[in-house]
Amino acid sequence: MERLKDPPKLENLRIVLVRSRNPLNIGAAARAMSNFGAFHLRVVTPYERAFREAVSAVGAAALLAQAEEVDSIADATRDCGLVVGTTAIGHRELQHELYSIEEATKKINKTLASGRVAILFGSEKTGLSNHDLSHCHFLLRIPTREEHRSMNLAQAVAIVVYEISRGCVTAKGKSKLSPAAADMESINRIATALLEALDISGYIHRRSAATAEEKLRRMLRRFELSSADAEVLLGMLRKILWKLHTQDTRRC
Amino acid sequence: MERLKDPPKLENLRIVLVRSRNPLNIGAAARAMSNFGAFHLRVVTPYERAFREAVSAVGAAALLAQAEEVDSIADATRDCGLVVGTTAIGHRELQHELYSIEEATKKINKTLASGRVAILFGSEKTGLSNHDLSHCHFLLRIPTREEHRSMNLAQAVAIVVYEISRGCVTAKGKSKLSPAAADMESINRIATALLEALDISGYIHRRSAATAEEKLRRMLRRFELSSADAEVLLGMLRKILWKLHTQDTRRC
Repeated sequence: MERLKDPPKLENLRIVLVRSRNPLNIGAAARAMSNFGAFHLRVVTPYERAFREAVSAVGAAALLAQAEEVDSIADATRDCGLVVGTTAIGHRELQHELYSIEEATKKINKTLASGRVAILFGSEKTGLSNHDLSHCHFLLRIPTREEHRSMNLAQAVAIVVYEISRGCVTAKGKSKLSPAAADMESINRIATALLEALDISGYIHRRSAATAEEKLRRMLRRFELSSADAEVLLGMLRKILWKLHTQDTRRC
Repeated sequence: MERLKDPPKLENLRIVLVRSRNPLNIGAAARAMSNFGAFHLRVVTPYERAFREAVSAVGAAALLAQAEEVDSIADATRDCGLVVGTTAIGHRELQHELYSIEEATKKINKTLASGRVAILFGSEKTGLSNHDLSHCHFLLRIPTREEHRSMNLAQAVAIVVYEISRGCVTAKGKSKLSPAAADMESINRIATALLEALDISGYIHRRSAATAEEKLRRMLRRFELSSADAEVLLGMLRKILWKLHTQDTRRC
């Protein structure tokens, strides 16, 4: 197994805990992150607001104190070029590519070298919802037994961060440097502009707007846009939108 | 990464928790063991005798019920050909060889093929004592940061058992086939439709139309569209185009 030449850039990693129910798990996840050198925790609508007092964050109180509390996955992933969901499920009706933890780690480490990566962990009860997954580029599967898939949340975080901190990369020699990936905020802006254009054009029926939005976001993520391409695309869409609007106005 | 030809014989593995203080940690360790297919837990003089009721053993109640409670490390390792201690310490006055988790795992998996291996985890407060270590053939170091070495006990068990269990997984990489790529004809159709929309919207200046077309095509190629996505995208663009044209006509 080859290793990265430089240590993985864990300062670019964002661990995102979505709707966690048990504050002790948040604390224990913070401890594991700190053990392996990842310091940036984001918490999306935790069940218990007082999670920062969790006694389980032994040695990681500062990390927990600095955790960002946000209201949405969009907000938690806004500055990230790659968003990865975690799952123990083998075969959902997957609309996402599913990678083994090793393959996923290679991709994550590659992206961390030049940009931010968010890794999402769902709630203890329900994991990540399909809506949550619509924010993800791909899924990472932790290889638990078929018969007992459900892991403790903090243990799942521990294993993923441990694996990333090891800095393994592809054994296939140097892979070509990929350009900086577009962050999720740009992707979301493109999605919004495109949706608006499609709405004006009558492509989207009101009834199915939510589904269309999810599908669209997933598709845009599959494109793996560079930030330069994202900028160009957004510029094009805005021009088209402007035209659509102008004409609507003139007609009235 | 090298893998074992046969799955690691986890039925030969004995996880030994020495003087654990918190029964919740014992339960959580049991859960992690079960997640990764190790079922034999031995507990040496736990602080709390009622550890078998630990609610943290989600999905692993049977494993916990069958755990052996013993009075000494000698007893816990009686039938094992290899005894490994775990530590987060880098340089104690070591009378033992210290291996990285990967090196240790190779040795452990090799021995498991033909005999029993015990892995010892010390108490939350003090780890393994020198006396405990005197039972060990070598030590395994989990690669935590120098500045924050102390791991949660159950997380340490999770990582070690996860690492050992990986011997059985073949490097599969992507578990989902990548969808069929769009052919160049579809890409060109998309480019043409998009160019037309951009032209109507005034995004493209006549003078630079040729360059714009080239840039656009290159960009679309970078997206590596699947044929399904290409079809959706073309449908969207045609609808937008239709709207742009309709309005142009009405205006005239």
